[in-house]
Amino acid sequence: MTAEMFPKEKTIDLRKKHIGPSCKVFFSHDPIKIVRAKGQYMYDENGVRYLDCINNVAHVGHSHPMVVKAGAEQMELLNTNSRFLHDNLVQYAQRLQATLPEKLSVCYFVNSGAYHGHVSSLINISPYKFHQLANAEQSKSVHVALSPDLYRGNYRQDHPDPATAYADDVNNLIQKAHEKGHKVAAFIAESLQSCGGQVIPPAGYFQKVAQHVHRAGGLFIADEVQVGFGRVGTHFWAFQLQGEDFVPDIVTMGKPIGNGHPMSCVVTTREVAEAFKNSGMEYFNTFGGNPVSCAIGLAVLDVIEKEDLQGNALRVGGYLTRLLEQQKEKHPLVGDVRGRGLFVGAELVRDRVKLTPATAEAQDIIYKLKEQHILLSADGPHRNVLKFKPPMCFSEEDADMVVEKIDQILTDIEKALGLQMPSTVHTENGSRKRNVQPEENGCHHSNGISHSHDTSQQHASQQNKRLRS
Amino acid sequence: MTAEMFPKEKTIDLRKKHIGPSCKVFFSHDPIKIVRAKGQYMYDENGVRYLDCINNVAHVGHSHPMVVKAGAEQMELLNTNSRFLHDNLVQYAQRLQATLPEKLSVCYFVNSGAYHGHVSSLINISPYKFHQLANAEQSKSVHVALSPDLYRGNYRQDHPDPATAYADDVNNLIQKAHEKGHKVAAFIAESLQSCGGQVIPPAGYFQKVAQHVHRAGGLFIADEVQVGFGRVGTHFWAFQLQGEDFVPDIVTMGKPIGNGHPMSCVVTTREVAEAFKNSGMEYFNTFGGNPVSCAIGLAVLDVIEKEDLQGNALRVGGYLTRLLEQQKEKHPLVGDVRGRGLFVGAELVRDRVKLTPATAEAQDIIYKLKEQHILLSADGPHRNVLKFKPPMCFSEEDADMVVEKIDQILTDIEKALGLQMPSTVHTENGSRKRNVQPEENGCHHSNGISHSHDTSQQHASQQNKRLRS
Repeated sequence: MTAEMFPKEKTIDLRKKHIGPSCKVFFSHDPIKIVRAKGQYMYDENGVRYLDCINNVAHVGHSHPMVVKAGAEQMELLNTNSRFLHDNLVQYAQRLQATLPEKLSVCYFVNSGAYHGHVSSLINISPYKFHQLANAEQSKSVHVALSPDLYRGNYRQDHPDPATAYADDVNNLIQKAHEKGHKVAAFIAESLQSCGGQVIPPAGYFQKVAQHVHRAGGLFIADEVQVGFGRVGTHFWAFQLQGEDFVPDIVTMGKPIGNGHPMSCVVTTREVAEAFKNSGMEYFNTFGGNPVSCAIGLAVLDVIEKEDLQGNALRVGGYLTRLLEQQKEKHPLVGDVRGRGLFVGAELVRDRVKLTPATAEAQDIIYKLKEQHILLSADGPHRNVLKFKPPMCFSEEDADMVVEKIDQILTDIEKALGLQMPSTVHTENGSRKRNVQPEENGCHHSNGISHSHDTSQQHASQQNKRLRS
Repeated sequence: MTAEMFPKEKTIDLRKKHIGPSCKVFFSHDPIKIVRAKGQYMYDENGVRYLDCINNVAHVGHSHPMVVKAGAEQMELLNTNSRFLHDNLVQYAQRLQATLPEKLSVCYFVNSGAYHGHVSSLINISPYKFHQLANAEQSKSVHVALSPDLYRGNYRQDHPDPATAYADDVNNLIQKAHEKGHKVAAFIAESLQSCGGQVIPPAGYFQKVAQHVHRAGGLFIADEVQVGFGRVGTHFWAFQLQGEDFVPDIVTMGKPIGNGHPMSCVVTTREVAEAFKNSGMEYFNTFGGNPVSCAIGLAVLDVIEKEDLQGNALRVGGYLTRLLEQQKEKHPLVGDVRGRGLFVGAELVRDRVKLTPATAEAQDIIYKLKEQHILLSADGPHRNVLKFKPPMCFSEEDADMVVEKIDQILTDIEKALGLQMPSTVHTENGSRKRNVQPEENGCHHSNGISHSHDTSQQHASQQNKRLRS
């Protein structure tokens, strides 16, 4: 099979003809045709190299030879379903279990993950999705908790105990459900919110939520589909950032698990597994846990270890975060930088007091980076958070390159908008237009550091809360 | 990776420890460990060869070298999501479209198929699944139509127009839903029922159902996950058996599509695709339509053509069906033989008048065949239908082998039970016990041939109807 069969225009035409119009391409006005990829780089039909800052699915790097070899060799030998015994299945389950708290010992192998985009029952629990529906209606059995967002949420860096405050919100939802005579099945959250805007919940939040949920007879489900497998650097799983004392009842994993091969897994406790069994429903998945998927999954784990990709995520992620924090010092548009390992977000705002989302500017940056052959995306409820989740082999040179380009683009945008840093306002030529108010001085949010707030910020926070409710 | 890492007992122990207890193995008291497979044969850890009559997923044969090569080569080059343009995606869509009526032109690539086992919304529409639940409750928005089963259903071979009668049942459901103020979204059916007992609906049934459903504003969904891709021999898709004039609104395809690689597809009309788009919901699937899956899908189509597997299904399936029909002439336990291509069922009954399902006998056959290294399964609501859906490279020699073994096992079982063919009853030694009644003479059902029925059969049919309601 050759890498390209059709001229790009023909590919686009055929796509319009035969692929569902609900299936979007990146950069729809001039989509990219990628014909090969290696590590953190993708190549288009003309051999132009793109730096990939977005494909977390290609976890250990695109087309990793060890993963390809493991998959190809197993395909030659056998690919069948899990109703036959196979050692790859049990070995892989054993290896996954070894990365988790002991209690999480029972695996269900799947091929699609807990991806929220496809079926009504999962769309129901995903505000990110159900808000897209023209006639969106929140399911009566779903209660959406506040995003534990310390930058833009109801309780922020300046709050004395945001973990408790956000957990109390969950408890309130539980109480309201109880008042209506409903029981609580489960609380589900990404261990770090990705599409929700690269949100890092305060440590201790999950423990407190779990207490409330368990007391109500429910389970705690940690969704590690986007953030697991060493990405956060210090730990293998993002829920472990909450503290050693936190163990979810169910962990969902997907995307990076197979480096692009369609596979995923749900791990739970013996207790939950037995309860599921007692429902009487057999669980069978035609593809889940087949020998090829497991061989690939094992190879991914091997590469993470062998190449110390978790360590690389810690080092390069830290480096990238520091570079972006320097951008925050320099560029008024960068309102917040937050990250753990190679899961990093930079939230753009037009105004550091009102936190007005710089949505158009974020899109502009994404498009301009694309023209310079860097793939980045913007996400979050306001689509104003630059979202870094590159393959785990991302290097400091890559970080330098992307931040250097962002620096230049931000400079250009801010120049066009007349935005300046508050601290430098008095030294600049007064002829430039500015929207920022004097009150914003001293209000630079920085991740993980609590600081006092002034009246205007409190006002903005309250406004924001009303808008969200 | 070696084919075996652990002794079988260790594999079983690890499986018990780490794999969900709802995940069953075949032959749970002595499961099979398969370490490699080729064509229609699987091999255990001791090199023992099993003839595979059940793995329809390995459609073009286990570990087919052309499919493996296509997958491995594309994995080396690129595996990424469908938000980038790629020629494999559009070429594959084009190739699939070419097998379908022109109207069915828009594809959604998925990685899991319309498999009914996993999510509540699909379990709801699958009586096969929701009846497994301890506290089974049929969703109020789901209406289960009669199985268009000409052997055991409400309207049989002797009915003057079973297609109309079964379609009228669907229309009655629609009317009842309307009376309750409900609208009708869709009718979904496997084009041939597989887990439902290898049921072949009478030709013209789908057209009539589609008329009723369309008039009510609903869509007709043909589920080809188990029965598509040339398996029925005369046609590429099983719904085409209904006649040239029938075109579903949506076709779901899975399992055989990737010969074991996790992939599937939904194809629909431009009209339906535009309506879905207008819901406002983007459709994205992390894995669906990736270049590796599409390369594999293309290779599967190539092999079907190059090796004329559809033709083989027609020839060998016909041969197998004839062999089984000979078994029906010989063995009272074989109540019905029905099939299209390499989709064949043999329904076992203890009594050809009452149609008492020979469930235990079917299980016995499956277990005895397994001891003789042949993999077959029994399915249907009574688990009494021997279900043939082998890889499409199945040969006449394979058919001879399996039917020869079945013949011997049936002979042994019937001897033990004292069952004899009605026509030979007067020539046999009268000392054998028999359950069959003299009235059954002349009541042998044969697939596709209408015949008169006597009073006792009518009575049995009515009984059966009451039992089902």
